[in-house]
Amino acid sequence: MARLVMKFGGTSVADLDRIRNVAAHVKREIDAGHQVAVVVSAMAGQTNQLVNWTREAAKLHDAREYDAVVSTGEQVTAGLLAITLQNIGVDARSWLGWQTPILTDGAHGAARIQEIKGEALIERLELGQVAVIAGFQGIGPDNRITTLGRGGSDTSAVAIAAAVKADRCDIYTDVDGVYTTDPRIVAKARKLIKISYEEMLEMASLGAKVLQTRSVELAMVHGVPLQVRSSFDAPDGPQGHGVGRDYFGPGTIVCNEDEIVEQEVVSGIAYSKDEAKITLRKVADQPGVAARVFSPLADATINVDMIVQNVSEDGKRTDITFTVPSADLERAVEVINSSAADIQYEELLSDTDVVKVSIIGVGMRSHVGVARKMFETLADKGINIQVISTSEIKVSVLIGSEYSELAIRALHTAYGLDHE
Amino acid sequence: MARLVMKFGGTSVADLDRIRNVAAHVKREIDAGHQVAVVVSAMAGQTNQLVNWTREAAKLHDAREYDAVVSTGEQVTAGLLAITLQNIGVDARSWLGWQTPILTDGAHGAARIQEIKGEALIERLELGQVAVIAGFQGIGPDNRITTLGRGGSDTSAVAIAAAVKADRCDIYTDVDGVYTTDPRIVAKARKLIKISYEEMLEMASLGAKVLQTRSVELAMVHGVPLQVRSSFDAPDGPQGHGVGRDYFGPGTIVCNEDEIVEQEVVSGIAYSKDEAKITLRKVADQPGVAARVFSPLADATINVDMIVQNVSEDGKRTDITFTVPSADLERAVEVINSSAADIQYEELLSDTDVVKVSIIGVGMRSHVGVARKMFETLADKGINIQVISTSEIKVSVLIGSEYSELAIRALHTAYGLDHE
Repeated sequence: MARLVMKFGGTSVADLDRIRNVAAHVKREIDAGHQVAVVVSAMAGQTNQLVNWTREAAKLHDAREYDAVVSTGEQVTAGLLAITLQNIGVDARSWLGWQTPILTDGAHGAARIQEIKGEALIERLELGQVAVIAGFQGIGPDNRITTLGRGGSDTSAVAIAAAVKADRCDIYTDVDGVYTTDPRIVAKARKLIKISYEEMLEMASLGAKVLQTRSVELAMVHGVPLQVRSSFDAPDGPQGHGVGRDYFGPGTIVCNEDEIVEQEVVSGIAYSKDEAKITLRKVADQPGVAARVFSPLADATINVDMIVQNVSEDGKRTDITFTVPSADLERAVEVINSSAADIQYEELLSDTDVVKVSIIGVGMRSHVGVARKMFETLADKGINIQVISTSEIKVSVLIGSEYSELAIRALHTAYGLDHE
Repeated sequence: MARLVMKFGGTSVADLDRIRNVAAHVKREIDAGHQVAVVVSAMAGQTNQLVNWTREAAKLHDAREYDAVVSTGEQVTAGLLAITLQNIGVDARSWLGWQTPILTDGAHGAARIQEIKGEALIERLELGQVAVIAGFQGIGPDNRITTLGRGGSDTSAVAIAAAVKADRCDIYTDVDGVYTTDPRIVAKARKLIKISYEEMLEMASLGAKVLQTRSVELAMVHGVPLQVRSSFDAPDGPQGHGVGRDYFGPGTIVCNEDEIVEQEVVSGIAYSKDEAKITLRKVADQPGVAARVFSPLADATINVDMIVQNVSEDGKRTDITFTVPSADLERAVEVINSSAADIQYEELLSDTDVVKVSIIGVGMRSHVGVARKMFETLADKGINIQVISTSEIKVSVLIGSEYSELAIRALHTAYGLDHE
């Protein structure tokens, strides 16, 4: 007997047929003797409808009212799933953010969970009742509904798992696990059985869309084992209501490093196309120049990622290159231009035709030559590296976007990740 | 300066344009120096969508989950109206049933309000903030959302008005007031300036659809003056966003009898087509027969309205005729048939081609001959009266439905109600 949290996203509960499919997944776990809390998103499309209404009402709107409106999406799904579970003989009830309660700070629209009172939930779970929890929402210090912002339902699920001391938090999604890289690019990509929190964090923040960074962080802090698995049935299994007997099976477990027996040197390859490169040509090479470039960007809450400063030719002038999210490029250029007199550069160049490719693996800590293999592999293919950045468990390079697929496939092979 | 509660139904908030129209109505009252609480229904169509989803999830569903799902309709409108008001410079915030709180009993799906804690609302109203309250909902003793059942938003509005000690509760609707009778039938129907609670109660329970019986009852108990008025602009007034300067103006005030200076003998004529007549022929005319007929119907919660028992021809057999809601006719016939051995009747006749026409007026208490005039007027037109029932302030007759319009128009003229 285990205590499980199961999380289902918007496409998994898009209509009543899919909600019945979810109920069948839940029943399978209940029939296996487990205690189950389910966290649900809004039915796909509903959140957009609600957000559009708030925009139609006013371009700038009170985040507290936005939260009151938008949180109804998850409320509806929670009620409908509870009804659907009861209809197949599974005891269930819905829980809203203010009922559990899921206490958050007062940052409406992007609130952070501060505490979850798990007692009431645990009591019901122990009686065998399924707790169907509306994701993405909580209650603020002002006694009003808050929403958690992007990726909120994953975060809800992990926080609930921590609060009820769940043995595992299963994130059901439209893929059946975490892959060594994007299978749409590399046909030989392998599904990972296990991956460490740290690696998953890097994967998520470096571009893999399967889990939100924030939920992985929370899982790591609280030691909640996550499983990423598919909410859809195996293509050759029975479709529709009869699901539950035949499904994709286990996905990928995200857990502590020491629970992974045979650690690969490189576990995965991530990429992100949402990068833009800015180069400032011939900046005065003197103390404090970096601060003069990056302080105004920080003030404008523009996140600078990779930075490289070339060796100056004559000791007087240097080039500074860095990346920002491509959505922020226009603003970043404005900020730099308005500080031009202060920074003193000859020319500003920007480029969005770039991609950041990263290799990730905790094994790097104990292995040498991992980065060198990356650089050699790319050089062999004639791919020019524009910027490099590294951390303890990853190496990222910025390359021309036309080389994306070529680079990812070559690296996947070079690090022995290809499916046999 | 007055404290007002304004209530808007589903068609008045059907889309963002109409919500802007509502906001303009509210702003007009704020600009006039009043304190305003607004009670809103779900956007027209939303409640049906939500109800249909719960039905799709399961034919029989947990009323607590139904309430969690269906109450989101009003929650969305409340948030959107608050945003819209803020957008035109009016301070506003939304209040959900559990926030106010509106405490109800535990009868999910048809809960009754037990207490409204008005302090928080009054505090905000006094600061000039508009309270936008989600109608139709409250919170039960189980800390879960309840809905109030049919006509719930009108009831919410009146209860809120009582709790905040409002000077008036304005019910905005798709008609501009209470008429002496249905203007679709009688072109000369007049809008009433004032009508007493008791008359309005009779009008509502006898078929006039303008207000729910329950909300009028509540208003009478708490002495809340109601006003029925139009949420739409006068046909020749400016349409769309520019509303607020030109509108239908005052509607009909529902108040205590003693506040109406010149009381008509008959204030209005109501009719209901949702009646079915059942006649039991040749029932044994002996003590206890009525109980044997009506007890099983009461047990089946079928509401018997008008009853007439003919004088028996020979002292042994009599005919009993009564009416039930036409929606319950089939069940009523089943109930009677299954008690046939006990009741002992020769024949059961039923008829849905009937209409109940009622004259209503507190003036009847002090005037004689009011009923006689009704019978004479109908006789003059050759209309046969099938059943009669009376109370202190109304006389109802059951007639063939083909005579509806003829009867209503003749009575309207006979009691001097025609517009000059």
